[in-house]
Amino acid sequence: MTTVSIITIGDELLIGQVIDTNSAWLAQELNKIGITVTRRVAVGDKYDEIWNALDQEAATANIILITGGLGPTADDITKPLLCKYFNGKMIVNQEALENVTLLFEKVFKRPLTERNIKQAEVPDTCRVLINPRGTAAGMLFEKENKIFVSMPGVPHEMKGIMMDHVIPLLKNKFDLPHIAYRTLVTFGIGESMLADLIQSFEEALPTHIKLAYLPNYGIVRLRLSAIGKDKDLLEKEIDTLFITLQELAKDYVVTNEDEPMEKIVAKMLLQRKQNLATAESCTGGYLAHLITSIPGSSAFFQGSMITYSNQVKEHLLQVKKDTIEKNGAVSEAVVIEMTQGILKHLKTTYAISVSGIMGPDGGTAEKPVGTVWVAVGNLNSIKTHQFHFRFDRQKNIQLTAMNAFNLLRQFIIGSDSN
Amino acid sequence: MTTVSIITIGDELLIGQVIDTNSAWLAQELNKIGITVTRRVAVGDKYDEIWNALDQEAATANIILITGGLGPTADDITKPLLCKYFNGKMIVNQEALENVTLLFEKVFKRPLTERNIKQAEVPDTCRVLINPRGTAAGMLFEKENKIFVSMPGVPHEMKGIMMDHVIPLLKNKFDLPHIAYRTLVTFGIGESMLADLIQSFEEALPTHIKLAYLPNYGIVRLRLSAIGKDKDLLEKEIDTLFITLQELAKDYVVTNEDEPMEKIVAKMLLQRKQNLATAESCTGGYLAHLITSIPGSSAFFQGSMITYSNQVKEHLLQVKKDTIEKNGAVSEAVVIEMTQGILKHLKTTYAISVSGIMGPDGGTAEKPVGTVWVAVGNLNSIKTHQFHFRFDRQKNIQLTAMNAFNLLRQFIIGSDSN
Repeated sequence: MTTVSIITIGDELLIGQVIDTNSAWLAQELNKIGITVTRRVAVGDKYDEIWNALDQEAATANIILITGGLGPTADDITKPLLCKYFNGKMIVNQEALENVTLLFEKVFKRPLTERNIKQAEVPDTCRVLINPRGTAAGMLFEKENKIFVSMPGVPHEMKGIMMDHVIPLLKNKFDLPHIAYRTLVTFGIGESMLADLIQSFEEALPTHIKLAYLPNYGIVRLRLSAIGKDKDLLEKEIDTLFITLQELAKDYVVTNEDEPMEKIVAKMLLQRKQNLATAESCTGGYLAHLITSIPGSSAFFQGSMITYSNQVKEHLLQVKKDTIEKNGAVSEAVVIEMTQGILKHLKTTYAISVSGIMGPDGGTAEKPVGTVWVAVGNLNSIKTHQFHFRFDRQKNIQLTAMNAFNLLRQFIIGSDSN
Repeated sequence: MTTVSIITIGDELLIGQVIDTNSAWLAQELNKIGITVTRRVAVGDKYDEIWNALDQEAATANIILITGGLGPTADDITKPLLCKYFNGKMIVNQEALENVTLLFEKVFKRPLTERNIKQAEVPDTCRVLINPRGTAAGMLFEKENKIFVSMPGVPHEMKGIMMDHVIPLLKNKFDLPHIAYRTLVTFGIGESMLADLIQSFEEALPTHIKLAYLPNYGIVRLRLSAIGKDKDLLEKEIDTLFITLQELAKDYVVTNEDEPMEKIVAKMLLQRKQNLATAESCTGGYLAHLITSIPGSSAFFQGSMITYSNQVKEHLLQVKKDTIEKNGAVSEAVVIEMTQGILKHLKTTYAISVSGIMGPDGGTAEKPVGTVWVAVGNLNSIKTHQFHFRFDRQKNIQLTAMNAFNLLRQFIIGSDSN
């Protein structure tokens, strides 16, 4: 098995100022080519800590991917350390210098400083991996049959170096196994109940096939992964198991592709050449943000009204003052009128409306924090649902969004059969 | 120095399905009480890997915080492993059982299964840290003068156990140093130019005071941290340095508190008893989402129109068809009319409008991907700015948001002096 250990370097990781998203991306891309990440380590900008991490990780993994610590400022010590670790001396790399010069001329449109020129210096024992997206080059070293790659921590620069250089190189160098994946997305069932439901299936799995439960905001992803040499056999084997799994969990299955909820809804709308608008109070634009984060969303999304105040609900969506006064802004009657209002104004096939109390303040005995009304519908029919979430503001907003998309998904399926 | 190593357990981390946000939160909370995180390690649900990580991390840190691996499903092996590692035997903990029973009765409203009861079993060598937010209890072990704490990976459960039990316990047990922080938020200057600007300041810093550069979407945070025993002396020392730093970077300073851009704007609006609305095309509700993620935002935020299609721009914001046809939807003229439209409808003090091309598609030679027009203004005056970003969709959306908030910030300051 070809294994990777990821070392991320930077005080900002250990003081908690930065959340490491690089490692997850790296793991996904490596898994696709049959390489397993066995460990991830984060260390600060400290000489001994970095040195020890290199020793330690090289002791167990074939490949050591290092991100971060290559910035132009004084707190970055990784490059001189790597130079010493791999017994090199620093030299200016001509190709890297050209890249830095070009970036400052064409992209940053600023004069090149002494600091920036230093970015083109590398140990003479490395192979330079040019980074057209930034000033810090990637560096590849080999030592005692292990491969070490150092890359900047800036996500899009790291990703570029991986795709341009590292992935092709690793595919070429190692005899990699095949990894097959199937992911089933379920909604509306907890992890432990799902585990009970599929217990005998899980217990009967052969050892080269693993099942993982990945719960997230009401969704549980079931991920089957199989590792082996014979691609065709493996794919056939996992397909058969996946069909059984889908059958077992069928009452809760949303989709058999690993996609976020908004993407699932987006694909349904695109297929049907239909479109959507949202009227959001408590989610404050989060539904619209998720939808418009999908490239090409203008094909099925018209827009939203974020009616945070009651006056705006009345003025923009023609929710009746009387309805709000009688029922409160967080009520079934209000989300119904919001849905009617947005459908009328934006003339879309479907609409989603939400009104709720996300916390930490604003709750009452009758309507505690976490009370949310959602309506989904079209011109013919509107379905509503009340939720009671019990988390913090951020999580309540996210749960509302996932549940709202799921309600719309069910509504669209229901509309198909009418 | 009291040091922590964090071990996160779970295959989901190593296959990249989950981004670890717990570690950053833990580091921030520990730093506040003078504890330094020196390493973070992530390992899969593998017996040997977890065991080795425990040995390795205990070799250098005083405290080992372990998150994850305590779920009710079969892929979680951490608890039996900890039982063996700390020479215990599994027993049902009465308090933990009561907690699980109560949760199922009152919160989940589901019958308790065999699997759930197992969640109340713990090694008899641990001190149980009750987790009222979930079924997996926290566990504290001591071995050779090191403290080990195992917590579930679910963020709000882990945070609850830390706040209720672990933080008070660590403060009590260790003689902790004081850590003083000051953070300066700058905007509109790159990391390396900033480094040149403050080079002599940085070089003259005493060794117990560190300066970190934390760049993020146009913002660079400069973070001074000082560690020592004498709190008063340390605070005085860092205050003096912080004043010098503010003076040096004054042309780029946004605020001297460590707050996100939307919070800075929110505070300005609250102070002035003014309010805001947004009209968003390319950001698709992201501005509104950031604002409404702030608790209590209804005090200064009225709502938004997310006008993703041109028809909706015309219909809802009365952007003239002619203006769009002559200038295109991504133009100065359109964002001006969007601002006028939203101010008229939502009657707020200020409005922000954005229209741009976020990519990957939709760019032209004249208006490539990353072209964005932003307008900020009130009834008297509107200021516009054109941006050219050069990243992916997500990053372009985020950069647009940060720059839009910064423009509004400058506009409000300008309005104050009129």
